[in-house]
Amino acid sequence: MSEQGPGPGGLTHVDATGAARMVDVGDKEVTRRTATATGVVRTTPEVTAALRDDTVPKGDALGVARVAGIMGAKRTPDLVPLCHPIPLAGVTVDLAVGDDHVTITATARSADRTGVEMEALTAVAVAGLTLHDMIKALDPAATLDAVRLERKEGGRSGVWTRPDGR
Amino acid sequence: MSEQGPGPGGLTHVDATGAARMVDVGDKEVTRRTATATGVVRTTPEVTAALRDDTVPKGDALGVARVAGIMGAKRTPDLVPLCHPIPLAGVTVDLAVGDDHVTITATARSADRTGVEMEALTAVAVAGLTLHDMIKALDPAATLDAVRLERKEGGRSGVWTRPDGR
Amino acid sequence: MSEQGPGPGGLTHVDATGAARMVDVGDKEVTRRTATATGVVRTTPEVTAALRDDTVPKGDALGVARVAGIMGAKRTPDLVPLCHPIPLAGVTVDLAVGDDHVTITATARSADRTGVEMEALTAVAVAGLTLHDMIKALDPAATLDAVRLERKEGGRSGVWTRPDGR
Amino acid sequence: MSEQGPGPGGLTHVDATGAARMVDVGDKEVTRRTATATGVVRTTPEVTAALRDDTVPKGDALGVARVAGIMGAKRTPDLVPLCHPIPLAGVTVDLAVGDDHVTITATARSADRTGVEMEALTAVAVAGLTLHDMIKALDPAATLDAVRLERKEGGRSGVWTRPDGR
Amino acid sequence: MSEQGPGPGGLTHVDATGAARMVDVGDKEVTRRTATATGVVRTTPEVTAALRDDTVPKGDALGVARVAGIMGAKRTPDLVPLCHPIPLAGVTVDLAVGDDHVTITATARSADRTGVEMEALTAVAVAGLTLHDMIKALDPAATLDAVRLERKEGGRSGVWTRPDGR
Amino acid sequence: MSEQGPGPGGLTHVDATGAARMVDVGDKEVTRRTATATGVVRTTPEVTAALRDDTVPKGDALGVARVAGIMGAKRTPDLVPLCHPIPLAGVTVDLAVGDDHVTITATARSADRTGVEMEALTAVAVAGLTLHDMIKALDPAATLDAVRLERKEGGRSGVWTRPDGR
Repeated sequence: MSEQGPGPGGLTHVDATGAARMVDVGDKEVTRRTATATGVVRTTPEVTAALRDDTVPKGDALGVARVAGIMGAKRTPDLVPLCHPIPLAGVTVDLAVGDDHVTITATARSADRTGVEMEALTAVAVAGLTLHDMIKALDPAATLDAVRLERKEGGRSGVWTRPDGR
Repeated sequence: MSEQGPGPGGLTHVDATGAARMVDVGDKEVTRRTATATGVVRTTPEVTAALRDDTVPKGDALGVARVAGIMGAKRTPDLVPLCHPIPLAGVTVDLAVGDDHVTITATARSADRTGVEMEALTAVAVAGLTLHDMIKALDPAATLDAVRLERKEGGRSGVWTRPDGR
Repeated sequence: MSEQGPGPGGLTHVDATGAARMVDVGDKEVTRRTATATGVVRTTPEVTAALRDDTVPKGDALGVARVAGIMGAKRTPDLVPLCHPIPLAGVTVDLAVGDDHVTITATARSADRTGVEMEALTAVAVAGLTLHDMIKALDPAATLDAVRLERKEGGRSGVWTRPDGR
Repeated sequence: MSEQGPGPGGLTHVDATGAARMVDVGDKEVTRRTATATGVVRTTPEVTAALRDDTVPKGDALGVARVAGIMGAKRTPDLVPLCHPIPLAGVTVDLAVGDDHVTITATARSADRTGVEMEALTAVAVAGLTLHDMIKALDPAATLDAVRLERKEGGRSGVWTRPDGR
Repeated sequence: MSEQGPGPGGLTHVDATGAARMVDVGDKEVTRRTATATGVVRTTPEVTAALRDDTVPKGDALGVARVAGIMGAKRTPDLVPLCHPIPLAGVTVDLAVGDDHVTITATARSADRTGVEMEALTAVAVAGLTLHDMIKALDPAATLDAVRLERKEGGRSGVWTRPDGR
Repeated sequence: MSEQGPGPGGLTHVDATGAARMVDVGDKEVTRRTATATGVVRTTPEVTAALRDDTVPKGDALGVARVAGIMGAKRTPDLVPLCHPIPLAGVTVDLAVGDDHVTITATARSADRTGVEMEALTAVAVAGLTLHDMIKALDPAATLDAVRLERKEGGRSGVWTRPDGR
């Protein structure tokens, strides 16, 4: 039995490479960490009009998507196998309705040993899936696009902002 | 993309007000926090006799309700959308059998940045729902009443106790 | 090893009585089943005014509570230990704002082998807990009262309505 | 207390419109239903080479993403508030590595009263988020794009395939 | 995009073999299915005496383990990646205290398209883990042994009973 | 209402003894804690050959079991009623294929107020259940044996290693 975590020591070659592991962050610094992610739901002008007028048949689509995004952020370690469970300090999810799309922006914050990028991205993805569910009777072809990290801050690597052209 | 969390900046009027958010508690103090909540399941003398004699057909109703309440406290952030996930330090759930009712008392404790009122209240509610489930073959009209916070302690606001007359 | 489920056969006296079990419903009829439950959150006129005006600081309290109630109904078998997991066919949660209280009404529907009372009651309780969370900065003494079954229909026992005086 | 689900009856104007509900599908037909969704994770040639060679530091990225996608499909009703819980009959998730991207394809199948579009879309989104997590040390700018329904079959509406140009 | 599920069609060689999938059971017969599993927690005579006398410091160890086993059975599809979510019709968990061990027996029942072996085995494993947790202050060396299927019935393959010598 | 947690004070005799509680660890030290557990899945040489050759019909059995074990560790407080929810700092799960068995080794790490034995044991048990699920078409009689703690470190009690003969 090895203390070093997964690796070839004492194991057959079957597991010798590529074994997934949840890396140990116990010695990382407890600092304030923030991450912001965005995404876009592309749909039709009819749907965005219904969202603005709050006439989507299934109910308050933007409100439900926002709540789902916040709750989704909290489920990140249940969904993403190697994500660390962390006590999230705060989450916001915004939905901005454009002509033929809805832009989703999520910011996750913690004061812990590991970053919150995945929490912000998960909030965007779950809000986007929920928006799809709310509008799919009107537009089954709606698409969730450009789910991506915009900015993160905190921890050893400091501030990262999305490079131009990506 | 705004760093200030949800708000009108850059959004259409659709989201300009009333947007739910999980507020950032990352700068709040890490202190010992405790909350106690109570509730009452009102039922019949026949049911309370069965509870005392442990003859409820579905099994050990009080024991199952207590376990469900403790586990329910841990599910609070999964159930209450804007609750922060926190590492609960301890939970107790008591059930006291009266003549025609059962009084439930739950105390939740943490050493974190946010209070544990919702955890204590959720423990009471889930224990009460479970008790209802265990006895509903005998009394489908059982009622969960008076689920309320009795006392909380810790954090900036110090000690709060329920005012008389509420 | 016994096929009859929990009981004294082969066991010591420790388990001979009172053992909780999830009863077998596999031979029950697949029928349409409906249950309606209600509950009341008692608070202050200031809070109900804020709910009406949508000026609760934490956001759209009624909308968030409604979503939480619907999601809570789906979590019933995770929360109530002996509840059967069932494919819920529909859930509605209404919140009606009165002078100093909010009345919550939830209806759960299925087409399965077991009733949906616990799903309706759980929807009410989780909506009530969430409403408490949304307004607790304004009124920490808010109370969830009278969580109870009003009516159920379907299955062998037909229609049940709450008797007068309970 | 109304049997008709959410609506203005007996409620103040606060809830009179836009109330979210999980619509009743209990009278819909039990039929075989299938849905296929796709999505694309856009990244760098260096990352796709590491995926092909199984040299991603965090482990077997494609295998972990596939498992996460399958498990994510099962969590759909926990994530998407108004989705019906259904017994999924099967889920497959494929990941095809291209030059600078990975294409994810998920198919969900059921024999139930409601479609499985959201399950297929959720599988794609969770597999995509997980892939992002596995490669983010190499490429924090990786983007999840074009998460969309390709085809669904079963139920009253028969076969739907994605229209050209969407 | 292939309808045949995971396979080499259209994919690079990366996924051509060994891809996990949740196999489609939608065309399998809906029948009554039952499975029984057992397991043994090996501990000390001091611990079994405490279990019999109900003097375990952490509380009613057998009752808590039984509830945990029943709830664990319901969580099987959340834990075992390729297990189908099914509406369990019933679960029983028995714990029989011997001289230096506790025998756990769980029976799961459904009326669905897929077997319930994993549900019975998961109930045993979670009850065993919980018993370990309850007694670990007295015996941290307690061992969960012989978690195995004893019998299953229903579906195309009929009755299976554990062969002698396994 | 008592602040001392569950006990006879003010309660009827029904709850006077044996009441389960999640003990308060809020005053325990925040230290690095590690626990390693092992277990063995006993099966046939045909199955271990299929595992080595990656020809198990259901897919990459070892990889799926490893991911399930890691995710299972994170679900420990959801499964084991009196376990404290903690932010796990790291988890590794190894599977070593022998002639007629697979040995599972899991190590859990945290920097918190309570030990991680149950997380390590749960990782082993869930990996073992998953392996059983993956191979059960080939060997329904496979057995999960010897799930036990090997070593733990951290907290007041320091290092514990499994005594000889247990």
